[in-house]
Amino acid sequence: MNASTIPLDALNAEVVAIFRNVGFSAAQAAALARGIVAGERDGCKSHGIYRIAGCLRTLKAGKVVPDAEPVLADTDGAIVRIDAKGGFANLAFVRGLPEFVSRTRALGMAALVVNDCTHFSALWPEIEDITAHGLAGLAMCPSYATVAPAGGIRPLLGTNPFAFGWPRRDAPPYVFDFATSVVARGEIELFRRAGDPLPDGWAIDADGNPTDDPDAALAGAMLPFGGHKGSAIATMIELLAGAMIGDFTSDEALDFLGSTAIAPRHGELILAFDPSRFAGGRGDPLARGERFIAAIADQGARLPGQRRHAARARSLAHGIKLTPAERAELDRLRRDGLDAVD
Amino acid sequence: MNASTIPLDALNAEVVAIFRNVGFSAAQAAALARGIVAGERDGCKSHGIYRIAGCLRTLKAGKVVPDAEPVLADTDGAIVRIDAKGGFANLAFVRGLPEFVSRTRALGMAALVVNDCTHFSALWPEIEDITAHGLAGLAMCPSYATVAPAGGIRPLLGTNPFAFGWPRRDAPPYVFDFATSVVARGEIELFRRAGDPLPDGWAIDADGNPTDDPDAALAGAMLPFGGHKGSAIATMIELLAGAMIGDFTSDEALDFLGSTAIAPRHGELILAFDPSRFAGGRGDPLARGERFIAAIADQGARLPGQRRHAARARSLAHGIKLTPAERAELDRLRRDGLDAVD
Repeated sequence: MNASTIPLDALNAEVVAIFRNVGFSAAQAAALARGIVAGERDGCKSHGIYRIAGCLRTLKAGKVVPDAEPVLADTDGAIVRIDAKGGFANLAFVRGLPEFVSRTRALGMAALVVNDCTHFSALWPEIEDITAHGLAGLAMCPSYATVAPAGGIRPLLGTNPFAFGWPRRDAPPYVFDFATSVVARGEIELFRRAGDPLPDGWAIDADGNPTDDPDAALAGAMLPFGGHKGSAIATMIELLAGAMIGDFTSDEALDFLGSTAIAPRHGELILAFDPSRFAGGRGDPLARGERFIAAIADQGARLPGQRRHAARARSLAHGIKLTPAERAELDRLRRDGLDAVD
Repeated sequence: MNASTIPLDALNAEVVAIFRNVGFSAAQAAALARGIVAGERDGCKSHGIYRIAGCLRTLKAGKVVPDAEPVLADTDGAIVRIDAKGGFANLAFVRGLPEFVSRTRALGMAALVVNDCTHFSALWPEIEDITAHGLAGLAMCPSYATVAPAGGIRPLLGTNPFAFGWPRRDAPPYVFDFATSVVARGEIELFRRAGDPLPDGWAIDADGNPTDDPDAALAGAMLPFGGHKGSAIATMIELLAGAMIGDFTSDEALDFLGSTAIAPRHGELILAFDPSRFAGGRGDPLARGERFIAAIADQGARLPGQRRHAARARSLAHGIKLTPAERAELDRLRRDGLDAVD
């Protein structure tokens, strides 16, 4: 194996060590590392090693509790609630999952509410933890205000991810996970660095006018995907996974943080459905799902998650390829800890 | 009052009479008329009188049961299930609503599954029946295959509506309801009649290539809103509100019907959430929702449903204005019954 390839276990150990070194508890470090390694394993570089520095920045800014112990509340009907106590969401999700799955099996459907968590990365790893139990899952959360509602002139919404998964018996689950903004903020930053104009419909300037200037866009607001329809979904996420669960909406999260350079504090709403209960004896829902998914693939359309699962198979077989910059970043973060970040 | 204005009650009686005349039961006719009058009342002409002929065509084709009596199954956990017995969805929803609301209050969240129903019109009236109880609601259903998945080449998805509502104490509810296709099929028909080319991104031809020719689009497929993200949501609706609940996906519905000229047979999935239970003592969720909704309106963005509610206020005060063509259509449908349609 050459110096630029690393087995998954070894990468996991390195990432855990970085987090432990700056004060995260063993449980928090393990849950964070799992997410980062999953990003690298699945070829989502934007959710892999790249994210470690942001976690450290958030800790350095005093906006995340590194040794938080999530507290599970008494289950209320179909609602399982876990208080992340200001830690990253990952550990809270893992700790709430058994009761969430159990409640979904008991009632056919349940909700997991995560309160007072700090956002980390993507929602699809959580969705895959749900589909692994043969359940369908839906997850959503606010972010911080960087997106204007359709017809609006200033940031109010977050990039508000929306993720869904459907279980499959003999294939990786059918999973999508996307920002409800046209693009992630990092995309606009890439255009700025390259000196390229933005495509139409991505952003508005500080006066609320359409702009193709990345600097003006960063000072203004991004736009939701899909016009007023995508905007409507982003507002639904603010209401259900912010106002309803007693947690920050995206504008409140930005007020609390004062910066978009660190991870947003918010809550998260996750729903799970037991297909066998919902089918109520009307056939085999997973077999029906397979027929439908095959009909997508048969016409040459790409299945969501397909690229990730192909990358995963390669990573499991051959390890993860690291660029020299990624290798150096791991070493720097391990050596310098919080001094490595602003 | 001049001949072109009609009070809501009088219009309702006329629409009921049309449906009774062709054999719908009193309960089915009342539920259908309520939906059509709501469309007219709220200025949604595309969901008003215009829809009556389609209901009659569906009956004439033998694809809806005019005197169906929906059957409520024993509630299974959080799942309330009603079999529409091949009738229109409206009556089934009304009959299932009390148990659905009761279950939502008991568990904090519940699902209403409607099976074997014939689709009628919009989902927002159902959503408003949920918000009227102080609950948040989410509704979705497949349609018939007229939309290609992103990256695909032929119809597989329906226009699959997705609707959401949030209750407000001192204002009409916050409600959106939209097709997950770029536009409704009727829009393309309007371009065809006008001889105008379609905007980019609306449709593909029968070979799967982008087209701006309405005829080629009608022979090909419409596209989902918002590219691969909107497409993903449309597929989620097929899986949750088709495969999962043991009912038709959109391609199966089209096979069953053999035509897009009549109302699609399918199932429907509706979720309700009790905000007070989800908040778990963390503040007043409706007050938090008001603050967020005000922040949308304060920047000049239009709230979803705002136009409908303004039209509703006018209709309630002054009655509904009918064009001469609409007046003539009501008379014709009443007089000729099923002979009035193909």
